[in-house]
Amino acid sequence: MRVGLDVGGTKTLGVAMDDDDRIVAQVRTRTGWGADAVVAGIAAAVAALQDEAGPVRSVGVGIPGQIDAGRVTHALNLGIDDLDLLAALASVVAAPVAVENDVKAAALGADALRGRAGSLAYLNLGTGVAAGIVSDGRLRRGGRGAAGEVGHISIDPAGPECRCGQRGCIEALAGGAALADRWGRPGEFPVRDLFDAADAGDPHAASLRTGAVRAVASAAQVLVLTTDVDVVVLGGGLTGLGERIAGPVREELNSRACASDFLRSLRLDERVTLLPAGSPAAALGAALVGAASAPEEVHTHG
Amino acid sequence: MRVGLDVGGTKTLGVAMDDDDRIVAQVRTRTGWGADAVVAGIAAAVAALQDEAGPVRSVGVGIPGQIDAGRVTHALNLGIDDLDLLAALASVVAAPVAVENDVKAAALGADALRGRAGSLAYLNLGTGVAAGIVSDGRLRRGGRGAAGEVGHISIDPAGPECRCGQRGCIEALAGGAALADRWGRPGEFPVRDLFDAADAGDPHAASLRTGAVRAVASAAQVLVLTTDVDVVVLGGGLTGLGERIAGPVREELNSRACASDFLRSLRLDERVTLLPAGSPAAALGAALVGAASAPEEVHTHG
Repeated sequence: MRVGLDVGGTKTLGVAMDDDDRIVAQVRTRTGWGADAVVAGIAAAVAALQDEAGPVRSVGVGIPGQIDAGRVTHALNLGIDDLDLLAALASVVAAPVAVENDVKAAALGADALRGRAGSLAYLNLGTGVAAGIVSDGRLRRGGRGAAGEVGHISIDPAGPECRCGQRGCIEALAGGAALADRWGRPGEFPVRDLFDAADAGDPHAASLRTGAVRAVASAAQVLVLTTDVDVVVLGGGLTGLGERIAGPVREELNSRACASDFLRSLRLDERVTLLPAGSPAAALGAALVGAASAPEEVHTHG
Repeated sequence: MRVGLDVGGTKTLGVAMDDDDRIVAQVRTRTGWGADAVVAGIAAAVAALQDEAGPVRSVGVGIPGQIDAGRVTHALNLGIDDLDLLAALASVVAAPVAVENDVKAAALGADALRGRAGSLAYLNLGTGVAAGIVSDGRLRRGGRGAAGEVGHISIDPAGPECRCGQRGCIEALAGGAALADRWGRPGEFPVRDLFDAADAGDPHAASLRTGAVRAVASAAQVLVLTTDVDVVVLGGGLTGLGERIAGPVREELNSRACASDFLRSLRLDERVTLLPAGSPAAALGAALVGAASAPEEVHTHG
């Protein structure tokens, strides 16, 4: 079995994949806080999948933050500032391990779920906003790994301040953390509350919602006008809102196309899709990353 | 010899390239208006290069407009609405011919001039604004050829109307045609006049120049944050202004980096370079496209 893990801020999802890339087992655990708890949680999830599905040949870990040769930095949601995850897992996981950024892993998983046809951008609408770009089955990282960082493109010089220091960034308008901040009312899923309030006629909520929808539409437009991916797959926490977010984004793109022959020719609205609810794209992608970097088993014939 | 042609709105530049990709001859002619004149001009340039440099093995044509299987559409600067250029050239040019969009050809040429190392975006600042993206020596076209169309990304919802129908597009702020239009005083090179007037303290000119510089900086930022190319090479008519445009663009990127740790880590200002003045990047790239699509000569040994 090849194992893939999606280590999120609150939960860790693990899958075991057979030789035909089919998911044959899943586990879901709470993610602990800080480096030690995250490492222990990964080891426990791998052990649970091994108990259920048999010997583990490789492990891939999708995790937030910047990843460089198995080292995780700036995974603030997990309480990790700097951790050599590959070294830390070497003593507690027997199989070969690979580590990938969670959004990039999800992009690979989304591509596999689509049958690896053509190209896609996976646009993650979570605490922050970032994309992973895949074409011909390969992740396009760029020279220094910054490919897909569309969250920090400004689309309005008069827009709200972004935590990155610029104004009017896509993430400042559509990121879950920025929206919750500007909404200002605590709750388990503040963006859902905000959308509910907008539906109920609250003008502040309606204005935040409009800004978020426009920013997601701009992110999709930017991705197509730079990389011309066949589809933009929306995923991440905000897509728990389903068509309540995807529908208005398509309408916004459609209304831009009505004003512009050039945009109409690109059929942006038709290229935006939602990752199916509950789809374990990041865990699946992580399993593929782990499998690809593990040494091939030696098969002896005859 | 492999021939490459850059068919521009006013002049056509032709180069002949030897087997080591060195340019051994150049011709420069006025481009005629309309399909017949353009076809005749191409044939004459090929003949002139053959006279000078010897038998022509392949011809590549870089030309504005949308290119699909040798068909050129929307090359409005040339007076061409729809022309099957490949078919038209078959009867007047003896060698195999390939046709490519001029910006994409220039991107390939700029990449060859840089020694085909890593990745680049060639950002053309001409009548319009568009980029060609090359990595690992290959043009990245995307699924439908729209990769690099950064001119029609809006960076300001309150910005000027673009000919594409949107507001605040990069091209509406930094395209030569849009700038000349908003400057409103005819001249041979209106954007130079505008920059001169800005230097002399004209507030309207200064405001147009500021908008143009910011838009070019945003185009570079968008290209790096989506594709993470190693360098953004500025070319096209506006770069006749040399450091008068490139300098302020780097300053703008540097000032954005001062406000944002994230942007600073990307070193955007250091990634922006100018195509050397007089560099025949588009003609060279067209020659490479022609050579690549021509059948290999059969070499018999012994």
